[in-house]
Amino acid sequence: MQMQDKGKFITLEGGEGAGKSTQIVMMADFLTAKGIDVVVTREPGGSPDAEEIRRLLISGGKDRWDAVTELLLFSAARRNHLQKKILPAINAGKWVISDRFADSTTAYQGCGYGENSVPKEMLEAVYKMVAGEFVPDVTFILDIPVDEGMKRVIARGEDKARFEQMDMAFHEKLRAAYAKIAADNPDRCVLVNALNTKENIHKELVKIIEQRFF
Amino acid sequence: MQMQDKGKFITLEGGEGAGKSTQIVMMADFLTAKGIDVVVTREPGGSPDAEEIRRLLISGGKDRWDAVTELLLFSAARRNHLQKKILPAINAGKWVISDRFADSTTAYQGCGYGENSVPKEMLEAVYKMVAGEFVPDVTFILDIPVDEGMKRVIARGEDKARFEQMDMAFHEKLRAAYAKIAADNPDRCVLVNALNTKENIHKELVKIIEQRFF
Repeated sequence: MQMQDKGKFITLEGGEGAGKSTQIVMMADFLTAKGIDVVVTREPGGSPDAEEIRRLLISGGKDRWDAVTELLLFSAARRNHLQKKILPAINAGKWVISDRFADSTTAYQGCGYGENSVPKEMLEAVYKMVAGEFVPDVTFILDIPVDEGMKRVIARGEDKARFEQMDMAFHEKLRAAYAKIAADNPDRCVLVNALNTKENIHKELVKIIEQRFF
Repeated sequence: MQMQDKGKFITLEGGEGAGKSTQIVMMADFLTAKGIDVVVTREPGGSPDAEEIRRLLISGGKDRWDAVTELLLFSAARRNHLQKKILPAINAGKWVISDRFADSTTAYQGCGYGENSVPKEMLEAVYKMVAGEFVPDVTFILDIPVDEGMKRVIARGEDKARFEQMDMAFHEKLRAAYAKIAADNPDRCVLVNALNTKENIHKELVKIIEQRFF
């Protein structure tokens, strides 16, 4: 019996309107054409029980949970997502692509709340509880100027209310946080200019995947 | 204007069938008769949003969440409960009595799962994130032999299925965990023999409350 190679775990991160969903579809098609068994997933959520936690996180007023409570809820969802979906798939040789993962928590709960954000040591301690030493094989951080991201979100006619409800300063903080995550994790993370055309961005992502994994 | 004195935070802990609910009602009546404004609450839950987390915790199969995921969900609920109900009440001079609090997490997630339990350092780190240095003013741990607790639960005709679903060894571990919590926290915790009559237990609790707070 031949040992099954483990799959890969690829995450896409970035602010609203950066084009994560589009790139995930294109990447899944590319990998599938290579004969790879691909699982596309998302956070928060991804597994049935984690999706129930997601509903608590995305409904209700914006002051429903504070940054620490959100950290705990996102992390509970992540633990379930890892155990029930991500790790079994990878162990079965599948490649998992996730729309957001732990870097979103670092950016949103660790920076987005300004002085009410969660300290870095707390984020790291909780991540370790949830995932141990497991990290994505590669993370693409799609970077886009805040006003351009907002234009795109409004143009596609969704999320407008939620996006506009948070102020520009919040989104600027997120963008800076993602740039810092990329700088702090140069082996894992690739910062991608999301102002390029979707075809060019796809080519850039594919090139990195081919260099690293084929 | 006179400064409002802060209220007290009293928690009751213990295994199934130990009589926590009965003692909480008697204690609330006693304090109310003294002119104290009393708030009775419970965990998991207690505040509307925490009650929604409670529903995730108490529904579904027993393998729905592992010990770490439960720790994160209980702690998210506790954070909300503290911010939205317990601390505002105490700051307004009310006395809060809670049916279960963090010691239940220490006993259930920290010991009940045997070798899959959460390590003590992790429990302590998460508690500190959630509550800082805040702890109950007094905790009564109602101690009852496992078979006697089971008899009482069955006699009152509720919870039978859930209680019987967990094995005796689980409940023995819980009982030992609570005894250890009492031994480790002698200033805060009082271990109470729950085989006494409810009237005698009430007298014992009242005596301690009078000694400490009046």
